Amino acid sequence: MKECKICIIGFGAVGQGVAQAISLKKDIIKDKYNTNLKVVAVADSSSSVVSQKGLDEELLVETKELNGNLKDYPEHSGKLTGMEILETVDYDCLIEATPTNIKNGEPARSLTLKAFDDGKDVVTSNKGHLALNFKELMDAADKNNVDFKFEATVGGAMPIINFVEETLSSCEIESIIGILNGTTNYILSRMTSEGSSYINTLNESQELGIAETDPTQDVEGIDAACKTVILANAILGIDATYSDVEVEGISKITSEAINLAKKEGYLIKLIGEVSQDALKVSPRLVKQGSAYDLNGTLNMATVKTDLAGDVTVVGKGAGSLETASAMITDLINIIKNK
Amino acid sequence: MKECKICIIGFGAVGQGVAQAISLKKDIIKDKYNTNLKVVAVADSSSSVVSQKGLDEELLVETKELNGNLKDYPEHSGKLTGMEILETVDYDCLIEATPTNIKNGEPARSLTLKAFDDGKDVVTSNKGHLALNFKELMDAADKNNVDFKFEATVGGAMPIINFVEETLSSCEIESIIGILNGTTNYILSRMTSEGSSYINTLNESQELGIAETDPTQDVEGIDAACKTVILANAILGIDATYSDVEVEGISKITSEAINLAKKEGYLIKLIGEVSQDALKVSPRLVKQGSAYDLNGTLNMATVKTDLAGDVTVVGKGAGSLETASAMITDLINIIKNK
Repeated sequence: MKECKICIIGFGAVGQGVAQAISLKKDIIKDKYNTNLKVVAVADSSSSVVSQKGLDEELLVETKELNGNLKDYPEHSGKLTGMEILETVDYDCLIEATPTNIKNGEPARSLTLKAFDDGKDVVTSNKGHLALNFKELMDAADKNNVDFKFEATVGGAMPIINFVEETLSSCEIESIIGILNGTTNYILSRMTSEGSSYINTLNESQELGIAETDPTQDVEGIDAACKTVILANAILGIDATYSDVEVEGISKITSEAINLAKKEGYLIKLIGEVSQDALKVSPRLVKQGSAYDLNGTLNMATVKTDLAGDVTVVGKGAGSLETASAMITDLINIIKNK
Repeated sequence: MKECKICIIGFGAVGQGVAQAISLKKDIIKDKYNTNLKVVAVADSSSSVVSQKGLDEELLVETKELNGNLKDYPEHSGKLTGMEILETVDYDCLIEATPTNIKNGEPARSLTLKAFDDGKDVVTSNKGHLALNFKELMDAADKNNVDFKFEATVGGAMPIINFVEETLSSCEIESIIGILNGTTNYILSRMTSEGSSYINTLNESQELGIAETDPTQDVEGIDAACKTVILANAILGIDATYSDVEVEGISKITSEAINLAKKEGYLIKLIGEVSQDALKVSPRLVKQGSAYDLNGTLNMATVKTDLAGDVTVVGKGAGSLETASAMITDLINIIKNK
């Protein structure tokens, strides 16, 4: 029986989802891949727990839910930072789930580079460092001969990176066009069905917890733009960074514009486009009844290929357990190759 | 540089597509996977060519297109059957593309078992032997420690088998529901948009080459039923065979029924369903605007999972090069593991 010792740095919705998913799946993974998953350290921004014997994933989530931090967990070890954990703990794979930071990619960038330097594999859900420093990170992973997986960064539970790599490996990819942000898709769908204004719909989405208190990253297209950069690098081999994306969000879309489009058989959607010629996120008219005609927080992407024609995937763009499922798939891919 | 010597048995649309795709992709595959693809034998039902030095894929397709057989190809070796080729030729991987036979799965079954016995890998586009003898074939592949890949059998260029295996490996699959036959989807879509009768639309589809001269396998749901059996076995681990499927085709669907559904916001689609409780193909009402609302010959499948929620794929269900692309992806997966 092999063992995979895991550090989870970042214990918000996604980090907790990973702990839950590991708890749900570790027996199956033991049977199927002959590998024992053991969470040996977890850190959020104010607390951390470490145990080389392995932590109880369910208790971690319960403790965090009760108190908002991990201080009441039995093995609570004080306030080690993520970096201090990576410096002191014996582990195999870093699950990096800190919040996306589009200014400088930290702390994800430093944590990831540190893990690579130490010869550890990394699975991340973080878009910031990838959108800013994709090449630096991939080069460091290659140099240290470690695995670096980031399926969860684009589309949450909608497979796209592994999807293209594993199921379309015979094809050249010409472009990827899709709805890459669930929050804005929810807002635009509601504005279309209700005829409501942008501001009222945004407020409603915030009350429902679909939009964040500071919705800037979503509504201004920043989140979708990060995803286009990741797809451009990972799938089309374009050496792009965040500043290369032409970005326009949805905050100037009026209900009048939506109604006008609707009358002519169109919808307004926030569309991300990635090709050798275009790297952009903008509101666009799409036909009612087309593949882009998706409601709610769903994500979709159409991959244009040379041999297989157009192939489309649709899935949940967010959600704690859903995003975690993509990270566990990445983890399984790493384990399988050991 | 590694080498992969290939026999293509069956040289209709799919077999020719594979030859074309190999011609288009062999340089990329050489660079990326350090493997030289070499077609050493090809057979159709009336002719065959063999050359251990390697055949010219473009010339094979041209010869077949001109004459309907391979007799004018320079290395034409007389009329070796597929089985005789497997007995005499030195090869690594069989590309099995003979027509689907739902009576006894032949010649695909015997060819595949022969290849396995000789320790060769097999990539197939053939549904018959899989729908009738899935377990026998998988057991034989396991026993001989060879690879057996069949992505092309379900959905043509719509990835579904590798898709679930590689990109949803963290999830348990609860069910798969989808449109698994392009011809019937075309007929039903046209009946809906034109208000035309079943028989007129079928005739039109035959004139366009979308439906075959004998359309039974498609319109009676047999093709879709084979696919549900393959998905049940390969993805849900259900030991099912063709006779376990409840099958109803579309030949009794009237334009009146379609119009009635349309007025209420519904469409009639031929839906395949695979779960622990159900294995069936039947015409069903689906909502306009739902994921099932797809026109033309497209295929789609919604995979219901425990962690990732519902994930949907859409792609071209048929086409020579499109189906071949799935077989080349399978071939690449085999090469990668060598």
